[in-house]
Amino acid sequence: MNNLHAHAFNVSRQDRERLNGHQGQVIWFTGLSGSGKSTLANALEAALFGQGKHTFILDGDHVRQGLNRDLGFSEADRAENIRRVAEVARLMADAGLIVITAFISPFRREREMARQLAPDRFCEVYVDAPLALCETRDPKGLYKKARSGQLLNMTGIQSPYEIPENPDIVVRTDRQSVEEGVRMLLEWLVSR
Amino acid sequence: MNNLHAHAFNVSRQDRERLNGHQGQVIWFTGLSGSGKSTLANALEAALFGQGKHTFILDGDHVRQGLNRDLGFSEADRAENIRRVAEVARLMADAGLIVITAFISPFRREREMARQLAPDRFCEVYVDAPLALCETRDPKGLYKKARSGQLLNMTGIQSPYEIPENPDIVVRTDRQSVEEGVRMLLEWLVSR
Repeated sequence: MNNLHAHAFNVSRQDRERLNGHQGQVIWFTGLSGSGKSTLANALEAALFGQGKHTFILDGDHVRQGLNRDLGFSEADRAENIRRVAEVARLMADAGLIVITAFISPFRREREMARQLAPDRFCEVYVDAPLALCETRDPKGLYKKARSGQLLNMTGIQSPYEIPENPDIVVRTDRQSVEEGVRMLLEWLVSR
Repeated sequence: MNNLHAHAFNVSRQDRERLNGHQGQVIWFTGLSGSGKSTLANALEAALFGQGKHTFILDGDHVRQGLNRDLGFSEADRAENIRRVAEVARLMADAGLIVITAFISPFRREREMARQLAPDRFCEVYVDAPLALCETRDPKGLYKKARSGQLLNMTGIQSPYEIPENPDIVVRTDRQSVEEGVRMLLEWLVSR
């Protein structure tokens, strides 16, 4: 009885995909604050759930209070924030989930790092809207704080946003409805 | 078209549970190196998968190469390793998965922290075997390294293991078979 047989059977990624009826995926939303990432993420998740798919949204609300509560908003901490999110997204995709991340993620090298963790099941979605429009929406009041000097390092104001050079999908939220954006995303998923 | 409606619909924990046919859970294995955590974790996962349940194993192999690659083996880093695992386990349980963690997790305060993140769906499993037996098994050769001074901070040798005072389940791997352990765990899950 003392001979434990290690790893006699492992549940594989293929097993999970068969059980779920779909692949694990990372749908990586990037864009300015106020561009519509969370709105699209929620609408996409609702649509996928309606199809019986297994999903999860990772956003700032989820991780800043928990996993990444030790991190601030310095350049190094923002990079570490995104690194950990990318690693958790990969683990969740390994677990069979369609993971939707909604972070500004302004730097190309970080998004590329995230893609490289799950290169065969990664969709970079550029949620595109002009800064002026995002600033009008200002859903969290962050632009107002940045303009008044209460907030430093705000992407689009004091800190750059590097536009994706080759995203898998672009949603222009100044011109397209949420429904149109969701339709494009669902089509991409079906094509996989 | 510029008025994005934020969070019009969110997929709730209850929705996910209905889709999966079971609750999300954190099954937290603790015990010495060589006590049989990984063996039990794999056997439990295989049994649950056979029932059509959605599972994932988090262990050192998963996180030390990825999420926690920035961490070493100092006391502070080992604590941070467990903290992040607990946070990821909570997120995965929120996503509807039965998450099985297999870490030595030697300190009561860390295991209590993990429980408090998901108190209503947490099972602490003490995988119990005498140190002498674990040292005979020595699946990773760590005891040998510790005894020869190549490895410091080895739990059970230079670093303490705090025995769980009130675990939900104890599996005595020196006396019980893997099958018996798995049966106890499945019974606990059914009772939830």
